[in-house]
Amino acid sequence: MRSARAIAHSNVALAKYWGKRDERLVLPETGSISITLDALWTEASVRFGEGDGPDLIEVGGAPAGPSDGRRTLRVLDLVRSMAGFSGTAEVHCWGNLPLGAGLGSSAAGFAAIATAASAALGLRLTEAEVSALARQGSGSACRSVPGGFAEWLCGRAPDGSDSYAVRLFGPEHWDLRVVIAIVNSGRKEVSSRLGMRRTAESSVFYDAWRLSVERELREVRQALADRDLTRLGEAAERSAMRMHATTLGADPPFSYWLPATLAVLSRVRVLRRGGTEAYATIDAGPNVKVLCRPQEVGVVEAALRDVQGVEDVLTSGPGPAARVLPA
Amino acid sequence: MRSARAIAHSNVALAKYWGKRDERLVLPETGSISITLDALWTEASVRFGEGDGPDLIEVGGAPAGPSDGRRTLRVLDLVRSMAGFSGTAEVHCWGNLPLGAGLGSSAAGFAAIATAASAALGLRLTEAEVSALARQGSGSACRSVPGGFAEWLCGRAPDGSDSYAVRLFGPEHWDLRVVIAIVNSGRKEVSSRLGMRRTAESSVFYDAWRLSVERELREVRQALADRDLTRLGEAAERSAMRMHATTLGADPPFSYWLPATLAVLSRVRVLRRGGTEAYATIDAGPNVKVLCRPQEVGVVEAALRDVQGVEDVLTSGPGPAARVLPA
Repeated sequence: MRSARAIAHSNVALAKYWGKRDERLVLPETGSISITLDALWTEASVRFGEGDGPDLIEVGGAPAGPSDGRRTLRVLDLVRSMAGFSGTAEVHCWGNLPLGAGLGSSAAGFAAIATAASAALGLRLTEAEVSALARQGSGSACRSVPGGFAEWLCGRAPDGSDSYAVRLFGPEHWDLRVVIAIVNSGRKEVSSRLGMRRTAESSVFYDAWRLSVERELREVRQALADRDLTRLGEAAERSAMRMHATTLGADPPFSYWLPATLAVLSRVRVLRRGGTEAYATIDAGPNVKVLCRPQEVGVVEAALRDVQGVEDVLTSGPGPAARVLPA
Repeated sequence: MRSARAIAHSNVALAKYWGKRDERLVLPETGSISITLDALWTEASVRFGEGDGPDLIEVGGAPAGPSDGRRTLRVLDLVRSMAGFSGTAEVHCWGNLPLGAGLGSSAAGFAAIATAASAALGLRLTEAEVSALARQGSGSACRSVPGGFAEWLCGRAPDGSDSYAVRLFGPEHWDLRVVIAIVNSGRKEVSSRLGMRRTAESSVFYDAWRLSVERELREVRQALADRDLTRLGEAAERSAMRMHATTLGADPPFSYWLPATLAVLSRVRVLRRGGTEAYATIDAGPNVKVLCRPQEVGVVEAALRDVQGVEDVLTSGPGPAARVLPA
C-alpha cells in the first residue's frame, strides 16, 4: 500500500519572508519566523500506483489550478526521485482554509503533501528533509513542518539543502493567540509568488528591506524566548508594514490592502490605546492577523467584528507539527 | 502705509518633497515639482506699525495655532531684518482651504504671507527671494510663489540661498486637471513636518527614497514638457506611493491613509481599466488628488463621488503665481 495521509497547519510569519534568491528551488533572500495556527489546517492523502498515466491532483474535490498543480507535481517528482519510484500519484487535499487569500493555504497544503508523499513511498526523511521538500512546493510551507514557533533558515548552499525550517519552541511554549480579521476570503489578484517577484525585481525599497530583516529576526527570537508580547508585537508590526511598503516601491506600485485592512489596523491601535495589547500583522493579502493574550481574545474579537468590511473573525492558538495520520 | 495684501494658491507635488536636510532653514533633501491649484487659495494681509508690542497673527479670524504662529513670526522677522524695520506686524489670513488636511493650506498661506510682508515693507525682492522666504514658513510654500508648474531646487548652499522654486511652465502651458477626493478635511494627526522628521530619522527606506527621487524629477520634467499624461501620471503615482511607503518603514510605522484613501486609489485603477486616464497622488494626509484631462473631469468626479467615505470632490486647473493685490 503506497499511500499515506497527513495533516499540517497554516502559519503566520512574525518576521516576514518576502523574496527569493532562487525561484526554482524556492530559496529565500532572508530568514523568517512564524507561529503555526492550530485552527487552520489542510489534510492531504497521497497514493502512488504502478501506472504511467498522468497524476491526479485534487484540492477540495476539484482539479488543482495550474500553479498549485505544477508545484504539487514538483514535490511528487522529488519524492519519486528520492525513492527511485516512477508510478503515478493521486493526491487529494481538503481543509478549512480559503485558498489563495493570504491565510496560509499553500503553507498548510504543501507541508501536508510533502509529509504524506514521503511517507507513502516509505522514505525515512528527517524533519529538516521534509521541510526542505515542502519548501519546494511553497516557501512558507517549510515552516509548517516543524510547527510551533518555527524559523526558516535562509541557508547558503546553492542546492538549497540547508534551507529548511527548525522548531524554535513547541506550541506549548507560549499560549499566544492570533485573531484573524477576514476582510476578503477570495483569491488575491496578485499571488505571493508574483508579488514577491515584482517587488524583488522593481522595488526601490527591496535592498533596504532585505537588510532590515536580520534585526527583526533577532527581536522576534528574543521576544519568543522571553514570552514578551510587547517586543514581539512591535517587531511583527514593523516587519509586516515594511514588507507591504516594498510593494508600494515597485514599478508600477501595487498593494494587497483593502480599505477594511486599514480600518482593522486603526482599530488595533485604538485597542492598544485602551490598554489591550494587540498587534497586527498582514501577509500577502488583505486579511489582518492580530496577536494578543488568551484572556483578551474576547475583547479583540468583538472589536474586530465591529469593523466595517470585516466578514468574519476567527482565532487560533499555536499549532503542532505536520504529521502522518493513521490510515 | 506699511501694508499689503497678497493671494497665493495651493499646490500639489507631482514629484514629492519628503524630508529636510536642515530643519531650521527648511532645506530639503531632494528637489520636488508641483502643479499650482487655481481653485484653492489663501489671501494674506500684512500691516506693519511702529509699536513694539507683540505681533498679531490671525488665520480665518482666529489666533494662529502655535506652529503656524511660530512659522509666521519667522517669516516676519526675516522680512523685518531685510528691511531694517523693527515695528510690530498684524497678519490676517483667510481662504477656501481646510487647514492641515494635506491640501496645501501651509503652502498657499506662507506664499501669500511672504509676498504680502515683503511688499508691505517695500522690499524689492526677486521671485526667487520671495520663494526662499516663503520656504522658511513652510517648505512647499516656495513652490506656490512662481505658480504654474514649479520646481523647488534642492540647492547646496548651507545658508539656503539657492533653495527656492522656479517656474518650469506657466499655468497656460497645459490645461491639466486635478480632481480632489476629500475623505477627511480635519487636521491630520501627524503634521507633515513631524511626519517627515520621523521618517528621515527612523525609516529603513529613507535613503532609498532619497536616491529614487532624481529619476522621478527627470520623468516629471519631461512629461510636463511633452504634455504626456501617461508618463506624468505614472511618475506621480510612483512618487506618491514611495513617499507613503517610507512612513511604513519608520519605527514605529505610521500612515496618513484612511480606508477611503485606498477605496479611491482602487477606483482610479478601475477608471484606467475602463479607458479613462486618471492617476492618483497623495500628500501628507488621507485625501487623494487625481490627475486627468479636462474632458474627463465629469467622469472622474462622478466616479470619486460614488466612493464610500468620500466627503466632497473638487476640481482645479493649474494656478497662477502668488501676487500682491490692489489695496
